[in-house]
Amino acid sequence: MSGMKQLIQCIPNFSEGRNLEKIETIVNSFRGKQGVKLLDYQSDSDHNRTVVTVVGEPDPLKTALMEALGSAIDGIDMRTHKGQHPRMGAVDVIPFIPVKKISMKEAVDISRKVAEEISEKYNLPVFLYEESAGRPERRNLSDIRKGQFEAMADKIKQPEWRPDFGPAKIHPTAGVTAVGARMPLVAFNVNLHTDRLAIANDIAKKVRHSSGGLRYCKAMGVALKEKNMVQVSMNMTDYTKTALYRSFELIKTEAARYGVTVAGSEIVGLVPMEALIDTAVYYLGMENFSMEQVLETRIME
Amino acid sequence: MSGMKQLIQCIPNFSEGRNLEKIETIVNSFRGKQGVKLLDYQSDSDHNRTVVTVVGEPDPLKTALMEALGSAIDGIDMRTHKGQHPRMGAVDVIPFIPVKKISMKEAVDISRKVAEEISEKYNLPVFLYEESAGRPERRNLSDIRKGQFEAMADKIKQPEWRPDFGPAKIHPTAGVTAVGARMPLVAFNVNLHTDRLAIANDIAKKVRHSSGGLRYCKAMGVALKEKNMVQVSMNMTDYTKTALYRSFELIKTEAARYGVTVAGSEIVGLVPMEALIDTAVYYLGMENFSMEQVLETRIME
Repeated sequence: MSGMKQLIQCIPNFSEGRNLEKIETIVNSFRGKQGVKLLDYQSDSDHNRTVVTVVGEPDPLKTALMEALGSAIDGIDMRTHKGQHPRMGAVDVIPFIPVKKISMKEAVDISRKVAEEISEKYNLPVFLYEESAGRPERRNLSDIRKGQFEAMADKIKQPEWRPDFGPAKIHPTAGVTAVGARMPLVAFNVNLHTDRLAIANDIAKKVRHSSGGLRYCKAMGVALKEKNMVQVSMNMTDYTKTALYRSFELIKTEAARYGVTVAGSEIVGLVPMEALIDTAVYYLGMENFSMEQVLETRIME
Repeated sequence: MSGMKQLIQCIPNFSEGRNLEKIETIVNSFRGKQGVKLLDYQSDSDHNRTVVTVVGEPDPLKTALMEALGSAIDGIDMRTHKGQHPRMGAVDVIPFIPVKKISMKEAVDISRKVAEEISEKYNLPVFLYEESAGRPERRNLSDIRKGQFEAMADKIKQPEWRPDFGPAKIHPTAGVTAVGARMPLVAFNVNLHTDRLAIANDIAKKVRHSSGGLRYCKAMGVALKEKNMVQVSMNMTDYTKTALYRSFELIKTEAARYGVTVAGSEIVGLVPMEALIDTAVYYLGMENFSMEQVLETRIME
């Protein structure tokens, strides 16, 4: 069995979504390595970007990651890169997510160590973001990335944008990279029995943090043309503090004012089991439940 | 990572709950073995019985189990055994439960092979029960065990109680053993805001299979004196077919006729994550959800 090992998830984003050979070279670094498991990778040619999802023990994962970064920095030239998704480097961003027997503080420590090693090995400027950020104005990736690769050569020379590691000078072809630890994101969408987008937009506004709603919820209204419905599309940024059921019930409550009911919901991509088990525990009114009672938790220990 | 390995759970029941040295000797067979994980063991001195919960890959688990059985058969003498729990052998019963990448049919095959090996190695009569039973009248463990150890010497000589493996003659000190594959049991209790036991008994009668209720639900009413409440105490015998939320909602519905509300619920012991995730999927009205979206499912693959 897997013993008492720590597990951390890493979702590096590479600025290459078209050249399959280059993509495979990068992804191959995560294959067939003891202690490393490639869960998923998706390339989007419009975005010209590949998102890799990998989980593993910190040390072997770091080794595999360093190898993949080498291939990306060798193979990707940001001077000729075009794509719809905002980007600032060949390895655009490297988020670390605690999975098992690892605290957020430990994940932050790992992310900082990786950031330091990358900067030294590849002479690459690295920004720390989210939980790893050294200052509040660097928590948000979009603030760091603002201006994208093209503006980065100048931006990085400003004292307030001096990188956390590496030279205050972009890598000529690989730009800059952001590294940070964060909670897992859960992409959670709730569909409504109406085709009026204004209703979904209004509800999204009420449930999301930025406009008065739940602390760890981002939300927007989306039209589902084929279904003739609308959707409140959410990113739950910390399900341990803003539970899925809470946003779900709040959407039901807000929809009721319009006489609209919830048609269903969906999770896009991966979700930690705890996010759904918390939801079951709430609806069943379970007392004194512990994740240690879940067979799979015990098996994975 | 754990690779694509099959995992099976085994919950052998040993008829020794008082002599710590004997118990530890038995349990030690499941410790420190590659591919075997001891999840839990509980000894009850009133029952004079130890229940071990172990999970592992079929082959190493079988090897560890055979070793533990040897210690139990050596160390336990049923001629002098006394305890409240019904029992018929030193190794009273050995259930196998599919956990990962293993079908019920494969679990049945494993249980039959183990039954055969035990009978040969220890000259022990073995009955197959539950999913492994060769005939319908042997599905229920309590039918096999009826009469207990004391009556077994005669019972086993009757043609209809000829054992599935081994001699038609009890082992002088170890009696007989039952081996079978079954679905995981979930012990799920629902508390009611009343102290009237008759209400819990009536609801139990309505939700359980034996008296007209849900197919894979056993239930009885229990008084919770300290809480001044009553409880519908259930054994969910196949959560994949009779979901936890279904019995929960049915209890709410039946309680409503008495003007009684549900105070809460609890799960006793272990529960497979899927039983709770199914519940979350129901309450959130989730569409097209797959267990493959659960991070832990992917990690364990």
